[in-house]
Amino acid sequence: MTETTNQEKTTNQEKTKSKTVKSRTTRSRSAAKSAKSKLKIIPLGGLELIGMNITAFEYEDSIIVVDCGMAFPEDDMFGIDSVIPDVTYLEDNLDKVKGFVITHGHEDHIGALPYVLRKINVPVYATRLTMGIIENKLTEHGLMDTTERHVVRFGQTVNLGKFRVEFIRTNHSIVDAAALAIYSPVGTVVHTGDFKVDYTPVYGDAIDLQRFAELGKNGVLALMCDSTNAERPGYTQSERTVGVTIDRLFAEHKDTRIIIATFASNVDRVQQIINSAYKYGRKVAVEGRSMVNIIATASKLGCLNIPENTLIEEDELKNYADDKTVIITTGSQGESMAALTRMAEDTHRKIKIKPGDTVIFSSHPIPGNEKSVTNVINKLLVKGADVIFQDVHVSGHPCQEELKLIYSLVQPEYAIPVHGEYRHLIAQSRVVKSLGYDNDHIFILHTGDVLELGEHTAKVTGTVPTGSILVDGLGVGDVGNAVLRDRQHLAEDGIVIVSAAMDAESQIVAGPEITSRGFVYLKEADVLMNEASVVTADAMDKYLRSGKKDRNKLGVVIRDSLGEFFWKKTKRRPMILPVILDV
Amino acid sequence: MTETTNQEKTTNQEKTKSKTVKSRTTRSRSAAKSAKSKLKIIPLGGLELIGMNITAFEYEDSIIVVDCGMAFPEDDMFGIDSVIPDVTYLEDNLDKVKGFVITHGHEDHIGALPYVLRKINVPVYATRLTMGIIENKLTEHGLMDTTERHVVRFGQTVNLGKFRVEFIRTNHSIVDAAALAIYSPVGTVVHTGDFKVDYTPVYGDAIDLQRFAELGKNGVLALMCDSTNAERPGYTQSERTVGVTIDRLFAEHKDTRIIIATFASNVDRVQQIINSAYKYGRKVAVEGRSMVNIIATASKLGCLNIPENTLIEEDELKNYADDKTVIITTGSQGESMAALTRMAEDTHRKIKIKPGDTVIFSSHPIPGNEKSVTNVINKLLVKGADVIFQDVHVSGHPCQEELKLIYSLVQPEYAIPVHGEYRHLIAQSRVVKSLGYDNDHIFILHTGDVLELGEHTAKVTGTVPTGSILVDGLGVGDVGNAVLRDRQHLAEDGIVIVSAAMDAESQIVAGPEITSRGFVYLKEADVLMNEASVVTADAMDKYLRSGKKDRNKLGVVIRDSLGEFFWKKTKRRPMILPVILDV
Repeated sequence: MTETTNQEKTTNQEKTKSKTVKSRTTRSRSAAKSAKSKLKIIPLGGLELIGMNITAFEYEDSIIVVDCGMAFPEDDMFGIDSVIPDVTYLEDNLDKVKGFVITHGHEDHIGALPYVLRKINVPVYATRLTMGIIENKLTEHGLMDTTERHVVRFGQTVNLGKFRVEFIRTNHSIVDAAALAIYSPVGTVVHTGDFKVDYTPVYGDAIDLQRFAELGKNGVLALMCDSTNAERPGYTQSERTVGVTIDRLFAEHKDTRIIIATFASNVDRVQQIINSAYKYGRKVAVEGRSMVNIIATASKLGCLNIPENTLIEEDELKNYADDKTVIITTGSQGESMAALTRMAEDTHRKIKIKPGDTVIFSSHPIPGNEKSVTNVINKLLVKGADVIFQDVHVSGHPCQEELKLIYSLVQPEYAIPVHGEYRHLIAQSRVVKSLGYDNDHIFILHTGDVLELGEHTAKVTGTVPTGSILVDGLGVGDVGNAVLRDRQHLAEDGIVIVSAAMDAESQIVAGPEITSRGFVYLKEADVLMNEASVVTADAMDKYLRSGKKDRNKLGVVIRDSLGEFFWKKTKRRPMILPVILDV
Repeated sequence: MTETTNQEKTTNQEKTKSKTVKSRTTRSRSAAKSAKSKLKIIPLGGLELIGMNITAFEYEDSIIVVDCGMAFPEDDMFGIDSVIPDVTYLEDNLDKVKGFVITHGHEDHIGALPYVLRKINVPVYATRLTMGIIENKLTEHGLMDTTERHVVRFGQTVNLGKFRVEFIRTNHSIVDAAALAIYSPVGTVVHTGDFKVDYTPVYGDAIDLQRFAELGKNGVLALMCDSTNAERPGYTQSERTVGVTIDRLFAEHKDTRIIIATFASNVDRVQQIINSAYKYGRKVAVEGRSMVNIIATASKLGCLNIPENTLIEEDELKNYADDKTVIITTGSQGESMAALTRMAEDTHRKIKIKPGDTVIFSSHPIPGNEKSVTNVINKLLVKGADVIFQDVHVSGHPCQEELKLIYSLVQPEYAIPVHGEYRHLIAQSRVVKSLGYDNDHIFILHTGDVLELGEHTAKVTGTVPTGSILVDGLGVGDVGNAVLRDRQHLAEDGIVIVSAAMDAESQIVAGPEITSRGFVYLKEADVLMNEASVVTADAMDKYLRSGKKDRNKLGVVIRDSLGEFFWKKTKRRPMILPVILDV
């Protein structure tokens, strides 16, 4: 890694932008065509399936990859643990790939690294806490020795082939989040990563707005900006406002145990809880593996400041009065195996919810998790806990006024909304249009699109192969659509297995025996299953008596006759699986 | 049915309540014990599983049942169509049951009637539109001839054994919703049903607040009140405010086709859409079977007023310019088979979404549907539609200030929050406490609880058997926990079937053959499955060579050895099903 000391002089792009927003619509058309190569921006994930952020930047013989995230499975992806991007395009261009530059340490930006690095073993660049979290993953996957890693400071620039990449401080719901200024021969692209504008962050400095402005002054070709909250007007509140709320809640609940659930990776939130605990003389126990891991990593790196004698082990809780303890726990999203869920369901090994306990959700349900969260809240309330779940959280993403601020500082020639569902990308494009941009200067990309940028041109010129790879247990990619369709069918109506054995003369010598799972309650379905046996035997007889012997066709006959029978009787369509053995 | 002409003199309960709220906490303790029988209130559903509202009121030889709803299946109830209450308690007391009194026509209040009436064939009492919707259901289930039905007017009282029941007008997101005053020998219970306070309803009169006040003056023993919005401060807005919004949207989108999705049963909403369509000279087509049905029923009963030449058939749409049409459709919750979802997915037979179409969601996502709704929104946006999904809806349930209003009018001796999840019942109890009630006068019941009320006493004295019965296709109750567990297991990891045939000497004469579904992609899993065959054959051999012949134990041996093998290789646990045939 070559490094330059600090902020770059971006001489490779002349400041050609008009200051008048209204003229933006025409100026690129009049620009002379450049003879230089084009910069390609290729999202390899993150736009159809939410999460799984990964974008390739390509210029001649150089490719850099921004982020390498995983996605959580959709509801109909039964049994799937996580989803990672298909990086065939990178594999096909392996010699060009110079490195991964990572914006921050959330799963949807780093989660696929351990899988992708096995195929694309190039250096990883990230800020301190981000790298700490990545290293936890690499250790788990046994990849520490084989992975070249570089911790980058804010303001620092790294050279990667034809690119230089500068890391710029932002604020987000995790410490050490970075935006990237990506310098290419045709111009500068600013990628915000996930961010918010927090003038009073808990740890570290506020977002480096001056640097965004300076880059804008020097001329920015394109801005790739976080869209998550683009439907929301106004500003996102400072993380510090949550600290004030937590402090008030501690003051109001001096006589009870406090259990507080939040996102493991929200180190600032944990810091504020610990601050309040310390102030009110409470000991803090930490529950949930991911929470324990991140707190350890953040403490080691100095991103978390825990006063001595504040943290205690779960086993020590019994040595303190309830009103002298706080439990920080995972499970704020109602995840089925998380610590708080286990407490609510009385399956937690050590912590039992008691009437009077104060349980605080310092979180909002992520879309899709509303019902799980509400189930946990209901169960906690049934146990007599006082549950607080409103207004103890702020978002980590920018609302509309923050988007306008960033666009006004950076004033890019092209806007490329990223990070969000399609509805959010559209919402950002509306905000951008309200600033005077026209449609020609806004690109809503799809995964796999190749956006080619010249010094004053931008055009989607093609697509590259992309896709989602499903991870199930140790299997990476061995569950695809066919297996998922079977799982959905099995889930919906169960399976009926018809077994029979036939001799060389195609005489049935055993069976047909009918077994089912997930179809009907067998103990009460005797009549139905006996009739089914008769239907099957008749159908097989009829086929075989006609002198036919094709095992596959016999299977079809069984499936058809039994399928029709069950549909008529139950209005259900179980999967029917004939197994014909040859004796 | 015996009827009394109008509002009852409730002489059977003396007005003993103190006017001073603060004395409420002690007055019942000083009341003399009555020699009369007790009134039992027994919720048979609706409190653990959301929806499925059904409550029995029992006094001596008389039982009346308020509502008879179904619930939608939980996410983990794979393949289940709906959930209905176990009414064993009513079956065991069949001779006592005098009738069903129904508050309004939503599925969670009437959906189980066609199933329950087969067992408990007693008269059904409901207001006009409610009965119209019930009759649609009964017709579908072939129960019209065998069901005694009575349409009740607001203000009317029906005699049912030892009970008299008065229907009181309320407002809700469906026309003709009623609260009930249930007069028993020990006192009056007011049941609000689902309601809101709408001073300016679209159809019919505002909620009969005077009657609530009059009942309160005469003395009310208990109030069972809707809790759905009890976490929300303030008031719910009038339905009419949505009409103003719709009108504005029509004015703002004069040049495009308008497609507007809402709840089929919200007749007032449909009325307001039709009003705007008529005003702006647009024809209206209706999409979705439930929407078509309800509009037909409501029109027939005069609850919906459609100007002539306004409704057109789907097929006639092509005869009008896009900006002269409106399509009212189902699918506002992103339901997978609903009309709007099919349009978004391009699987609708006749209507294709075009760039420029204006699609309005006149609804909020019901908790749990957020992701489905967002998927439909994204797909519509990708097709170039302008999608409006914020602030075109109001709730049909009371917020905190409305709860305070009803409690202040009715001033019941006991508060029994109903209709809502546990968190909502708790939220209502907090509102009630803020009015001066103490814990002894608030009852948060569980399904099956028997609450016994005397003239000034209330106590949970026991429980009755209750439960949820799963409906899957034609099957009612033939899918239980065992089948669901199998479906969950199959969904998660699929199934592996081991088939073999053995002769009388316990020699394997065919197989073992291994087949799988929903486990791994077979074409690429040759090596794994071949190894699995060897593992199975070895395990069988070892068992049989030891001279053992028990088929069940052989099955266990196969399951154990193969289960361990697959876990080691894949970290998955498919269902393993050995089928041993005897030749």
